[in-house]
Amino acid sequence: MNRRMVFYMIGQIIKVEALLLVLPLIVSLCYGESCWQAYAATIGIALAVGFGFTLISKPGTKLIFAKEGFVIVAVSWILMSFIGALPFVISKEIPRVVDAFFETVSGFTTTGASILPNVELMSHGNLFWRSFTHWIGGMGVLVFIMAIVPSATDRSIHIMKAEVPGPIMGKLVPRVKQTARILYLIYVAMTVLEFIMLLCGGMSVFESAVHTFGTAGTGGFGARGDSIAGYSPYIQWVITAFMLLFGVNFNLYYLLLLRRFNSVFKSGELWTYLGINFAATAIIAVNIFNLYGSVEQSIRLSAFQVASISTTTGFATADFNAWPEFSKGILLVLMFIGAMAGSTAGGLKVSRIVLLFKMIKREFLHMLHPRSVSAVRFEGKTVNDDTLNSVSSYFSLFMGGFFVMFLLLCLDKYDFQTNFSAVAACINNIGPGFGAVGPAGNFAGYSDFSKTILSAAMLLGRLELYPMLIALSPSTWSKK
Amino acid sequence: MNRRMVFYMIGQIIKVEALLLVLPLIVSLCYGESCWQAYAATIGIALAVGFGFTLISKPGTKLIFAKEGFVIVAVSWILMSFIGALPFVISKEIPRVVDAFFETVSGFTTTGASILPNVELMSHGNLFWRSFTHWIGGMGVLVFIMAIVPSATDRSIHIMKAEVPGPIMGKLVPRVKQTARILYLIYVAMTVLEFIMLLCGGMSVFESAVHTFGTAGTGGFGARGDSIAGYSPYIQWVITAFMLLFGVNFNLYYLLLLRRFNSVFKSGELWTYLGINFAATAIIAVNIFNLYGSVEQSIRLSAFQVASISTTTGFATADFNAWPEFSKGILLVLMFIGAMAGSTAGGLKVSRIVLLFKMIKREFLHMLHPRSVSAVRFEGKTVNDDTLNSVSSYFSLFMGGFFVMFLLLCLDKYDFQTNFSAVAACINNIGPGFGAVGPAGNFAGYSDFSKTILSAAMLLGRLELYPMLIALSPSTWSKK
Repeated sequence: MNRRMVFYMIGQIIKVEALLLVLPLIVSLCYGESCWQAYAATIGIALAVGFGFTLISKPGTKLIFAKEGFVIVAVSWILMSFIGALPFVISKEIPRVVDAFFETVSGFTTTGASILPNVELMSHGNLFWRSFTHWIGGMGVLVFIMAIVPSATDRSIHIMKAEVPGPIMGKLVPRVKQTARILYLIYVAMTVLEFIMLLCGGMSVFESAVHTFGTAGTGGFGARGDSIAGYSPYIQWVITAFMLLFGVNFNLYYLLLLRRFNSVFKSGELWTYLGINFAATAIIAVNIFNLYGSVEQSIRLSAFQVASISTTTGFATADFNAWPEFSKGILLVLMFIGAMAGSTAGGLKVSRIVLLFKMIKREFLHMLHPRSVSAVRFEGKTVNDDTLNSVSSYFSLFMGGFFVMFLLLCLDKYDFQTNFSAVAACINNIGPGFGAVGPAGNFAGYSDFSKTILSAAMLLGRLELYPMLIALSPSTWSKK
Repeated sequence: MNRRMVFYMIGQIIKVEALLLVLPLIVSLCYGESCWQAYAATIGIALAVGFGFTLISKPGTKLIFAKEGFVIVAVSWILMSFIGALPFVISKEIPRVVDAFFETVSGFTTTGASILPNVELMSHGNLFWRSFTHWIGGMGVLVFIMAIVPSATDRSIHIMKAEVPGPIMGKLVPRVKQTARILYLIYVAMTVLEFIMLLCGGMSVFESAVHTFGTAGTGGFGARGDSIAGYSPYIQWVITAFMLLFGVNFNLYYLLLLRRFNSVFKSGELWTYLGINFAATAIIAVNIFNLYGSVEQSIRLSAFQVASISTTTGFATADFNAWPEFSKGILLVLMFIGAMAGSTAGGLKVSRIVLLFKMIKREFLHMLHPRSVSAVRFEGKTVNDDTLNSVSSYFSLFMGGFFVMFLLLCLDKYDFQTNFSAVAACINNIGPGFGAVGPAGNFAGYSDFSKTILSAAMLLGRLELYPMLIALSPSTWSKK
């Protein structure tokens, strides 16, 4: 492994984080809050760490392979979360390190699971940072670096592959750097659009920023204890729409910009994604109608919650933990499906689910006609066996990892439903689950051990398992 | 599709069922119970149906393919369960058809889930039949027919493939008929051995028979309300041992008979199976020690329950629903793993889990070295891609089917844990789950709709999904 290059890249990332920490510093200064000192101190630490890494490890060669890509992404995400947690600890608003780390991992991984019993007690600076980590983590800090660092070579594809979710990593244009730029431009444009639309709905500048970050990164951290429930129907619909929009594969937006409408229109993944959301919304609206008695409200609450869960955002406009078991069951299944690959959302991704279905169909044909050979086609192309193997192995590994973490959580004091949904909500980067970790509850009651497991689940889910596991494997670091 | 041959075979099976129904008839006569009339009537109906099928559909050609194999197995299992349910309905001991069907499916599929609130009120004849269905379903009625019908051709491999669980169907000897005979001889020998060992422990002849059938088929129906809890430690250990023995791939016993000890000793699946059981027993024993305070008792109860769940038998010596969440979590995971392929047990099977792990490992290597090609080896042989695809598709289909049935069950009145474990217990052919369907409860409280779903889950699980789905697909029956 090219260790020098790995450490060099990690140093670069921490320097970028120092830069990004300037924003919450400014916010806290604007509000005259004392937590600006915590940000100043953290920026100092981040710069020291960042320069420490880059100065010590000037790389001889910039050559990197898949392994380096995985390790860079995994280690930098962990380190980024540790440094990102410092302001909470230093400002004493989240005094315990395990809690602050959990909250920051939850931010960067766009999960939105919180250990805060009362979010409204937080300073503006910290609330801003908490939500801003969603925005950073949504598209990925390494993709950001690809976009801005002039020296990014085409070798960086290994880094991008490790950070961008989905079974098939499509470069929009031949050069990695250009691809990263286009992705970020679309991301920024959509973020600005939502911000303006929330302002138009009478939301304050601060809250509009916080909720836009939460939506754009499909994160879910907000500014109020009741999430989005206290806002007007207009705001709720705007956020519903943008959650769905940020759950779409960004490649499709690029195709739209290129006016290749036909390619967008023919996307099987898009129609499946919309179909799942539409069907789930309709079924849940009927199922919860008796609770609310109003057609408009049932549809609005259902559409919001379905979009929020299926895009793995995690905002809430109702305590869905009190909904009927059937509605909760649908939400649980949506947690695992997630939204489209190449979006900011988590979960298994619709494209993987579609490919798994197509593989099952192929197996049926094979069982009936053992000598027949049939190819799996997706988005107009034949999918090669490597991709199919990768999708099915991912699914097995995901379910295996899920059950291991579920078991470890069972050592804690909570019931089956709480533990099961807590792991589901963390590994799929949703946020709230059911039971004690439902939208009206939080993750504070778990032990430090459980919080560490859940932090790992969030990182594993966001980076799609392999980078973390490869980085943590001793053989990766052995000198031979 | 060769419909005539399909119907002819189904007719044969129903005739065999009529023959098997003579045993409970004799038992009820011995005990002077009036339910002998129910058996006499059912035998009459079965003969009428059986001869009806075989007379109408004299096959022109005996040629059958994979599709016919699936359809014969699926349809005959459903029909067999309907006819097998008649004695319960006619004798009015389980008056409702849905309940009697559930109980009989639970018997044939070796699940052992019951809707009976008080099993001790049942007549001996019915209790015997209930447990005897386990024994029939364990090795499979079609395998039985292969073994006894002189005309079984080598085409019958398609039927055997559809009925014998596991990812790889290994013929012991080149001829199907001989393979089926050997399997049944081993099965009968082990059954007799357990029966004798239970008698030696002071159990009555009737109860020894009932519990031997329940163990041999890895079913779980017993004769008492508290399952095996009221029996001596000797009995409990004997049943523990035999549950484990019946969870072993029967091919290994054949290899033992051939004195090929080395092949048995090198079986990766065997060691994984034993390792899982040993580890789970040790962990649970420690976890429940505080509840019982005795080392011997903790180990005995843990070993029994782990063997019972991992072999998907479902007997209980304790109300494991009252055990700590961690122990319950382990049992839940064991439910999905199941025992070895080619045994009478359900679940995903250890061999599939091993192959899934090996595929994940291959994927890791492939991600790190994209140009490398590595084969998956199992039991000393390279596993071909068709088998691997089949294993991973089976896993996806299994999890997909699981969640669909879980969702449908959520329409009922029970909580998350009860519904989740009810589907897990039925699709994996275990028997009891947690919550309301725990070992101290039963499935009677579910609605008819839910009971039908769970009956389907049991059949889908026992026949490993494909036969049922292919038989239920309209395209299978279309005339083109």
